[in-house]
Amino acid sequence: MSLTVFFSAPFVWDEYRDLLPQKLAEAGIDADVVTEAPDPSVVDYIIYAPSAPLQDFTPFTHCKAVLGLWAGVERIVGNTTLTQPLCRMVDNSLTEGMVEWVTGHSLRHHLGMDRHIINSDRVWDPTCPPLARERKVTMLGMGALGTACAKALAALNFNVVGWSRTEKNVEGIPTFHGQDGLQTALHGADIVVTLLPKTPETENILNAEHLALLKPGAFVLNPGRGPLIDDAALLAALDSGQIGHATLDVFRIEPLPQDHPFWAHPRVTVTPHIAADTRATGAVKVLIENIRRAEAGEPLLHLVDRARGY
Amino acid sequence: MSLTVFFSAPFVWDEYRDLLPQKLAEAGIDADVVTEAPDPSVVDYIIYAPSAPLQDFTPFTHCKAVLGLWAGVERIVGNTTLTQPLCRMVDNSLTEGMVEWVTGHSLRHHLGMDRHIINSDRVWDPTCPPLARERKVTMLGMGALGTACAKALAALNFNVVGWSRTEKNVEGIPTFHGQDGLQTALHGADIVVTLLPKTPETENILNAEHLALLKPGAFVLNPGRGPLIDDAALLAALDSGQIGHATLDVFRIEPLPQDHPFWAHPRVTVTPHIAADTRATGAVKVLIENIRRAEAGEPLLHLVDRARGY
Repeated sequence: MSLTVFFSAPFVWDEYRDLLPQKLAEAGIDADVVTEAPDPSVVDYIIYAPSAPLQDFTPFTHCKAVLGLWAGVERIVGNTTLTQPLCRMVDNSLTEGMVEWVTGHSLRHHLGMDRHIINSDRVWDPTCPPLARERKVTMLGMGALGTACAKALAALNFNVVGWSRTEKNVEGIPTFHGQDGLQTALHGADIVVTLLPKTPETENILNAEHLALLKPGAFVLNPGRGPLIDDAALLAALDSGQIGHATLDVFRIEPLPQDHPFWAHPRVTVTPHIAADTRATGAVKVLIENIRRAEAGEPLLHLVDRARGY
Repeated sequence: MSLTVFFSAPFVWDEYRDLLPQKLAEAGIDADVVTEAPDPSVVDYIIYAPSAPLQDFTPFTHCKAVLGLWAGVERIVGNTTLTQPLCRMVDNSLTEGMVEWVTGHSLRHHLGMDRHIINSDRVWDPTCPPLARERKVTMLGMGALGTACAKALAALNFNVVGWSRTEKNVEGIPTFHGQDGLQTALHGADIVVTLLPKTPETENILNAEHLALLKPGAFVLNPGRGPLIDDAALLAALDSGQIGHATLDVFRIEPLPQDHPFWAHPRVTVTPHIAADTRATGAVKVLIENIRRAEAGEPLLHLVDRARGY
């Protein structure tokens, strides 16, 4: 009997329209992929982006899993109509893209590239930057993405430390956890990268108090979640010089409103939520593997723990 | 009382003439740096290159250490007049700095950072760049520096190929050599990095013919030597769009003259010969640290074991 897969992420459908049915067939899974579900009770799987119109999961009485296309699930995890197993997306292209963005912007700030990129005065100042080994980088969040980024930066000799809410052990990267560990991890950092999930504990983790722990002139990179940063505190720290530059990929409201002060600030770079994009080819492999596992009664990959919120 | 530092390496004196006294003063060390020593008995430290004329160390009766400028000491270690402690130079800064510059600017071009750094129109365009694995990077020159850069880029998943004049084998990096190999190495490259020595064979290696082999819109990075590039051919290729951007650290005349078209071109970034910290900048740190240690009675760095010979 053919499975019904309801693809509920209309704005990326073009990327999946041909690819997903083709790869399902190659995997030997007999399935119809639909973008409308007039009879929700026949749907076996929902492929979902949190920004999709679908918000009421109640009618999907036989749905075996909701398979997210995003790593972040905070916009759906509190949905009380969603009683089905929820999986988030973790795929290599997401990680690779994130590592490239974090490594690239860390090197950009470390090397002081902007003064060469914008140099209409033709200044020739051969002052060398310090070496990466002289820079402390603090990675807030040591999940799959944070750990991959920490390792890439450490491979370039950056002096990387990690912090996470609960204890983690990562070979070659000193890690800290909990509130005391956070003070130690942030103290004197040249670069701080926020790659935490958004939870009540992590919201505004980069507030005035924590920004003050960094080395004066430090760089902030946020490719994680907009609410990890207290926007007003960051702007104040930029104005005081405590923060030298912030490069931000995620925001409380996206697209970032045209009148938001981040756009106008000379020491803020806005990137438009591109640090880690789910590429369809990588994502399809994960989606199909989870359908295969569910049909075989095996544990699902990247199953969200609703109590923890991620 | 002021220390006397005898700089006995005449052929590199120009690099140290201003830098060494300045950095000694910054380190709070009161010292005269001299290049002649009419009274050897007053010399506290000798900074030395094995090819220097000085061969008889007997008269330097109060010299506390001989601080070499080279990693290799085989030409001096058997000198029986040299009874003072001998230190060799160990300075990874050149390679590390080069890897950071090449990796940083490769990622900058790969990710299209400039459109976000310079974005006064507040454009929110969430088009993602391809992944590094989809970019071919050609490293022209596979010596110590080129190989280190190639490996760093490959670790970030860039599709790296190397080229050198003579055959080289580097694990994990496909390499080409000779004139036929050059065509293959350059064909369809997204990024080309020039890290060759300047020889009659390598001068103008990036000429119109070779630039035309790259993928349209390719990026050129030159941290090697100015004459590796045919400046006029590069400017023509930038104007035609064959080259999307060039980031150049070295030039035929340095500082780059204010009226050189590279300064004015919107798709050229000039960096002021900072890709690899000059040997002097890194070496001076090691020299001064050893003088500080000797004065403080602390163990010297990189002290040569005369019995082992290194």
